[in-house]
Amino acid sequence: MGLVVQKYGGSSVADAEGIKRVAKRIVEAKKNGHQVVVVVSAMGDTTDELIDLAEQVSPMPAGREFDMLLTAGERISMALLAMAIKNLGHEAQSFTGSQAGVITDSVHNKARIIDVTPGRIRTALDEGNIAIVAGFQGVSADKKDITTLGRGGSDTTAVALAAALDAEVCEIYTDVDGVFTADPRVVKKAKKIDWISFEDMLELAASGSKVLLHRCVEYARRYNIPIHVRSSFSGLQGTWVSNEPTGDSKVEQAIISGVAHDTSEAKITVVGVPDKPGEAAAIFRAVADAEINIDMIVQNVSAASTGLTDISFTLPKAEGRKAIDALEKTKATIGFDSLRYDDQIGKISLVGAGMKTNPGVTADFFRALSDAGVNIELISTSEIRISVVTRADDVNEAVRAVHTAFGLDSDSDEAVVYGGTGR
Amino acid sequence: MGLVVQKYGGSSVADAEGIKRVAKRIVEAKKNGHQVVVVVSAMGDTTDELIDLAEQVSPMPAGREFDMLLTAGERISMALLAMAIKNLGHEAQSFTGSQAGVITDSVHNKARIIDVTPGRIRTALDEGNIAIVAGFQGVSADKKDITTLGRGGSDTTAVALAAALDAEVCEIYTDVDGVFTADPRVVKKAKKIDWISFEDMLELAASGSKVLLHRCVEYARRYNIPIHVRSSFSGLQGTWVSNEPTGDSKVEQAIISGVAHDTSEAKITVVGVPDKPGEAAAIFRAVADAEINIDMIVQNVSAASTGLTDISFTLPKAEGRKAIDALEKTKATIGFDSLRYDDQIGKISLVGAGMKTNPGVTADFFRALSDAGVNIELISTSEIRISVVTRADDVNEAVRAVHTAFGLDSDSDEAVVYGGTGR
Repeated sequence: MGLVVQKYGGSSVADAEGIKRVAKRIVEAKKNGHQVVVVVSAMGDTTDELIDLAEQVSPMPAGREFDMLLTAGERISMALLAMAIKNLGHEAQSFTGSQAGVITDSVHNKARIIDVTPGRIRTALDEGNIAIVAGFQGVSADKKDITTLGRGGSDTTAVALAAALDAEVCEIYTDVDGVFTADPRVVKKAKKIDWISFEDMLELAASGSKVLLHRCVEYARRYNIPIHVRSSFSGLQGTWVSNEPTGDSKVEQAIISGVAHDTSEAKITVVGVPDKPGEAAAIFRAVADAEINIDMIVQNVSAASTGLTDISFTLPKAEGRKAIDALEKTKATIGFDSLRYDDQIGKISLVGAGMKTNPGVTADFFRALSDAGVNIELISTSEIRISVVTRADDVNEAVRAVHTAFGLDSDSDEAVVYGGTGR
Repeated sequence: MGLVVQKYGGSSVADAEGIKRVAKRIVEAKKNGHQVVVVVSAMGDTTDELIDLAEQVSPMPAGREFDMLLTAGERISMALLAMAIKNLGHEAQSFTGSQAGVITDSVHNKARIIDVTPGRIRTALDEGNIAIVAGFQGVSADKKDITTLGRGGSDTTAVALAAALDAEVCEIYTDVDGVFTADPRVVKKAKKIDWISFEDMLELAASGSKVLLHRCVEYARRYNIPIHVRSSFSGLQGTWVSNEPTGDSKVEQAIISGVAHDTSEAKITVVGVPDKPGEAAAIFRAVADAEINIDMIVQNVSAASTGLTDISFTLPKAEGRKAIDALEKTKATIGFDSLRYDDQIGKISLVGAGMKTNPGVTADFFRALSDAGVNIELISTSEIRISVVTRADDVNEAVRAVHTAFGLDSDSDEAVVYGGTGR
């Protein structure tokens, strides 16, 4: 029996009862002979309450002090969890990100982990303790300031610690039973996936699946740490994410892993761009300089008659205004006709490594959409993914149609618990 | 203009409005040319809420994890305060006790400061920042664990930082106008004291005055740091506590500084103790071994006929049960008759260095009590203090009588704000 890292999200430790339930589960793992490291998020709504307080004293809270504030949340949950474990007769010690050796760069509010030096965690484990670590936080290498890792930070903390401690597995406990073939809120017949490769999981995460964030999966793939996503409310096996199916998850890889969708993006079309070298570069330099992350980019061949082309790209709705402003400023130098902004779009993506060797997948995908009466506005593909942009109103119907067409529907109307996953 | 340490209690930063008000006051001090270090307590009821959470997961929360939990409170208030100051256009950085160099022993929940190494604070000040420091917390020298300083901890943090940074003054902001000649809730005509010596303040604190704790005053006296206790709700001068009246407080020391009272104690009488060497030592060894702090001790001469004496002492009510148990266990070896426990007592103390050179003070004190019909049960004195124990019901009347008798009453019925002072 080796070392296990378990991560519990905010919804799992939302109140004293939740903390006690989680404590029991942790003690169980310890009793089974594991060394146990637990990464915990802030309780339920704590982070939102802290943000609300911050907004009351400062209009745009950010930076060093905002990180100092937010990290109070995990401090509370981890100390309570350690107490609850002690109350069950086992030894536990809690550690801040800094104490656990989570070293980051200095980019406050979205720091990146640059090293993990878990000496104190190792000592605590060797002395027979369960180690509880604050997720989402670290300490900057240069200034020794408290930093936070941004969205999905606690999952990343867990995977990073699992890698540094050479854990057998990183268990991500959440309020759903695992990763599903589609969002169960949209597709009632979605099935829990028993095993999925890192590659497919990365594509699902990039395409709108919320259970695991891209960043965390990428970290796990780099260090080859198997992730087991499972519910903290049941004892069921969840979804294993790894290089090769192992142990309980000896299954053949499906051709298609799942269907993801995303309605958080908007589309900007730059109309009438002169079709000559350097124009696209100038456009995306302007957007990048405004620190906006873009997703799909599509450029059609230019109409021969005009020598002009249209370039479309998608980006988070929240950054739409900023992108338009940045582009307007460069209109004269770049020389396009106009900008079109559309936030009534949705993206549907089909993901599966099997599509590399199954040439019919693309055709079947488009056929399913067409049969459902869904119009396609943009198309973008990777080796193991096809994504289309449609009207936002069509998204749910499109997801269900594709899910059925690829034989992903379960036989029963499975009841699944689904909600927010903390951070 | 030199360096000023300001400390704000929980009631001063109870909500966003309070934090913004305090931020303005801090910025004012900075604008006046001071380098400013601010020590802040947890917001309002935060600590109580955290204790409540802890009790929900563990019946007797204590130790390392309890400290980890409680220190989240200051982390929140200090970060918010730094944000509020930035919002006023000034630079501020917040620091945990650990970051501020508050080094303690390893006694969790009531750690003692053993060193202060404020290198990061000094750097922040030199770079033009206002430094905000979490009160009440430190880091243990040996294990690098987070510790808390126990009751009155934030005041002690402020004085310790003032000493380490060689501050001009340590300003303790609270929700009262200063130290009064008696508790204004009991004596309506109590007067604010403009200046009081460390010695008298120590005696008042030891005798039940709650505005400053004994420990904090003792620290200030040792390093000769003037304390200015004042209201965070007004701009008025408060009470200066120092070796010599200086600056705004050039006043002659009064004969009597004030009247303190305390109804938090109980009295234990050990009846029929053989009057021979070693008996008292055995009794107080038993009490000390149970880690109980005692206050007054009184032993009368023994009755010649029996060779037996009675020994009485007072102690916090909360520790009464423990003391009785400890003494009962040693009854056989010590050889006393019986124990009497009385928690319906109160203590009234008259404090003033002037009584050393004014022989009539004691007589006047007893006369005032007698005129008010108050019966005295125990008497204890120091060079600059007389304390008596009476029935609890008589305490308020006794305090008022003594206050009037020593000419401490103000001319006007002064309206004063009074409430809890945070920690």
